[in-house]
Amino acid sequence: MTLRQRTAALLNMPLTRNLIVGVIVFNAVILGLETSGQVMTRFGGFITFLDRLCLSIFVIELSAKLFAHGHRFFRGGWNIFDFAIVGVSLVPGGGGMSVLRALRILRVLRVISVVPSLRRVVEGFITALPGMGSVFLLMGIVFYIGAVMATKLFGDSFPHWFGDLGQSAYTLFQIMTLESWSMGIVRPIMEVYPFAWAFFVPFIMVTTFAVVNLLVGLIVNSMQDAHAAEDHAATDAHRDEVMAKLVAIEKRLEQLGK
Amino acid sequence: MTLRQRTAALLNMPLTRNLIVGVIVFNAVILGLETSGQVMTRFGGFITFLDRLCLSIFVIELSAKLFAHGHRFFRGGWNIFDFAIVGVSLVPGGGGMSVLRALRILRVLRVISVVPSLRRVVEGFITALPGMGSVFLLMGIVFYIGAVMATKLFGDSFPHWFGDLGQSAYTLFQIMTLESWSMGIVRPIMEVYPFAWAFFVPFIMVTTFAVVNLLVGLIVNSMQDAHAAEDHAATDAHRDEVMAKLVAIEKRLEQLGK
Amino acid sequence: MTLRQRTAALLNMPLTRNLIVGVIVFNAVILGLETSGQVMTRFGGFITFLDRLCLSIFVIELSAKLFAHGHRFFRGGWNIFDFAIVGVSLVPGGGGMSVLRALRILRVLRVISVVPSLRRVVEGFITALPGMGSVFLLMGIVFYIGAVMATKLFGDSFPHWFGDLGQSAYTLFQIMTLESWSMGIVRPIMEVYPFAWAFFVPFIMVTTFAVVNLLVGLIVNSMQDAHAAEDHAATDAHRDEVMAKLVAIEKRLEQLGK
Amino acid sequence: MTLRQRTAALLNMPLTRNLIVGVIVFNAVILGLETSGQVMTRFGGFITFLDRLCLSIFVIELSAKLFAHGHRFFRGGWNIFDFAIVGVSLVPGGGGMSVLRALRILRVLRVISVVPSLRRVVEGFITALPGMGSVFLLMGIVFYIGAVMATKLFGDSFPHWFGDLGQSAYTLFQIMTLESWSMGIVRPIMEVYPFAWAFFVPFIMVTTFAVVNLLVGLIVNSMQDAHAAEDHAATDAHRDEVMAKLVAIEKRLEQLGK
Repeated sequence: MTLRQRTAALLNMPLTRNLIVGVIVFNAVILGLETSGQVMTRFGGFITFLDRLCLSIFVIELSAKLFAHGHRFFRGGWNIFDFAIVGVSLVPGGGGMSVLRALRILRVLRVISVVPSLRRVVEGFITALPGMGSVFLLMGIVFYIGAVMATKLFGDSFPHWFGDLGQSAYTLFQIMTLESWSMGIVRPIMEVYPFAWAFFVPFIMVTTFAVVNLLVGLIVNSMQDAHAAEDHAATDAHRDEVMAKLVAIEKRLEQLGK
Repeated sequence: MTLRQRTAALLNMPLTRNLIVGVIVFNAVILGLETSGQVMTRFGGFITFLDRLCLSIFVIELSAKLFAHGHRFFRGGWNIFDFAIVGVSLVPGGGGMSVLRALRILRVLRVISVVPSLRRVVEGFITALPGMGSVFLLMGIVFYIGAVMATKLFGDSFPHWFGDLGQSAYTLFQIMTLESWSMGIVRPIMEVYPFAWAFFVPFIMVTTFAVVNLLVGLIVNSMQDAHAAEDHAATDAHRDEVMAKLVAIEKRLEQLGK
Repeated sequence: MTLRQRTAALLNMPLTRNLIVGVIVFNAVILGLETSGQVMTRFGGFITFLDRLCLSIFVIELSAKLFAHGHRFFRGGWNIFDFAIVGVSLVPGGGGMSVLRALRILRVLRVISVVPSLRRVVEGFITALPGMGSVFLLMGIVFYIGAVMATKLFGDSFPHWFGDLGQSAYTLFQIMTLESWSMGIVRPIMEVYPFAWAFFVPFIMVTTFAVVNLLVGLIVNSMQDAHAAEDHAATDAHRDEVMAKLVAIEKRLEQLGK
Repeated sequence: MTLRQRTAALLNMPLTRNLIVGVIVFNAVILGLETSGQVMTRFGGFITFLDRLCLSIFVIELSAKLFAHGHRFFRGGWNIFDFAIVGVSLVPGGGGMSVLRALRILRVLRVISVVPSLRRVVEGFITALPGMGSVFLLMGIVFYIGAVMATKLFGDSFPHWFGDLGQSAYTLFQIMTLESWSMGIVRPIMEVYPFAWAFFVPFIMVTTFAVVNLLVGLIVNSMQDAHAAEDHAATDAHRDEVMAKLVAIEKRLEQLGK
């Protein structure tokens, strides 16, 4: 057994996995404590040290994985995911890069790639996406058309909401979620353009109908998967049995007839 | 091969289709850039030129289609859809017709009629509508009754919300989407008419129940379609086989009995 | 054929039915026009006359039905529904009884009892209710408990929202629909009682979970009904055929064995 | 029959059960009346007496159950539920313990453990929970990450909403329910951090997608349970019959062949 194989075996041990989960959870708590001003003024240095310790363990683990699997490491989507998440934390976040510092908490997402049951749920989410591709594309088109029209129609009078395509898209997203769409947005617009409802009410109907169709598609797909998996095993076995019996009977009759 | 047939063949080529999709996407970008004041002040003339170019291509394409298919062109719903969308852009939008100018972005919807996967999704939406006709009619009746009652009951005190049937219908639509229904509308009304909840709470319950039933109907229909399509092929083939075998066995027995 | 039977036959004619639908729709338009102040000042007398005419036709129709069916008239739920709706309009709505006048528009609901497809949808709604009885009862209990607790805990500080059981129930209904629950209600309360979220967040979770379960129950029931109706006919026929064939084959074998 | 067995038999009698339901409902009304200041000033003493009477009956009933079943009493989840609910009421709620007094209304929940149909609904809810465990865990992780990030990014400028982890989690819960998320929270934040939408819009999409998946999971599970229960009984019986017949036919043929 080469050193590579031994490393791979070590990484696959349940103990190693549990240890990593433990470090992730511990790191999550540390990063949570970092948000408290009080804790940071008293134990700031110690907490930063513990965070660096956790990060070091992740770097060692991923290096070991990289060594064990070689270039095949980058074939697994989850490996790339882990690599990117840990990599973000290694970028020096000095100066005004408080966003990069905030992104360190994304390390907690590693728990998904390590715990199989969570992994399966997320993989289920992701495999559901392509089937909804056409509806997503359609909603993208509707949003783009809506944003262009709203910018042209209401942009001059309501620059804060519909000043450019980005603002219009954001406002239309808000309207799609039905948040304050009428009292907050459409009623004030109708003071200026009395027929604004003729744009927004159909927009709401079309987008909510599209969302409902996404939901229906998801349900039907999941149901069929479940249905197929469960039912067919039993049914097919029965069918094969019946056909086998019928064929045997026919053969016997042929022999009798001779 | 006549010129008509050649034109039809040319239009059906994948290359032509991809070209048209390309022009649509390019046109969408152009119309998006038109919303930016900065871009228009610097490249306004060029962008207007490009937009006219795209429109010309669409007009040529539709004319060719019209020539190739003759009067049968107007039998296809999607052709009429394309015709109307391109036609709107040809109406001279002078003066205060900024709405007509804004409608030009609807040309992007042509991508739906050209890309088959989008076309199928929209056709799926449309075929789902007739099955929901009765529920829609019922909701229309509930809205009409609600609007008449609300106008009579609250119109004098709250003319801004319930002044006439149109305003009442809009306000009731807002209430159905649950947007600010209580803090924004019903609580102020209850200051004047303490029993206003007896009108609005049942209205919310009835309309959301109807919406839920629309959703349930959609799910059940899609499920049955999917179920039927998938299952029956296999089941029917098996049933036919079993019956054929049984009939064959019976015949053989008859011959033996003779 | 007695006069009773002749009246019943006349009432069952498609022509009579269509005539009644026409009168209902005409009456709906009349009642809609009544909401417009302008129309009423100019044609008020004529419109009131037309409304009375429609009402007279309904009274005559129902009287004829009552005569034709006798006491069996009151066995049908829809007949009682029609009777109550028309009856409300006959109560003299003098003085401050503007509510009774507003209730006249409910006559439009008669269209449901007359048009079979609408009737079926509403009957479908109503038959779905008993299956949800337990969940409704449970939600009633949760609301009652929530209202009592909220009144005791927050009634003194927020009498406008939780002053008595009725107000609390209304506010909790608003919170269940998620309308302004946080910015409008819970954040102001948390200024006084910092732990108010511990009451409202679980309340939201429990009630939305219950609503989701209602929805799931509805979907599963509709699906099973549809499934059963469609599938079993075909399956049962096939099963009977197969069994019949098998029994026939066995009999033949018995005869052969003799 | 020992005294224990006699007590158990007495407790299981329908009459006893109905009596307890009656006492619970009566107690619920009493506790409801307690919220009314007017009623309390006039009949305060009497109502407190009736409430204590109800409580005494519950204590006696539970003591009898405890005596009848011994230590096995605590094996049933519903028994522990009843015990805890009644126990809360016995804690002396003096001084500022108005919360404990408000918790007495939870006694009404006993109706769930006593009425079988309600019991089944709640048990259905609870058995549905473990299947959703992974999705719940995932949402917990997303909320924790979101809360840490929001606190770090927006905590300094908006201490009221994102001051610490608890406040951030509450605000994110509000945003997940879509209540005032844009006009109330995100638009004000975008005045300071123009790219705040890049955090909140994906957060809304991920959490609503997760909620939708919970719903889909619930529907698919319920459907499969219902499907399995209904269908398999009939199908299995048919399959067994067909196989039995085929085996019989084969045996007969073997005898003929001899």
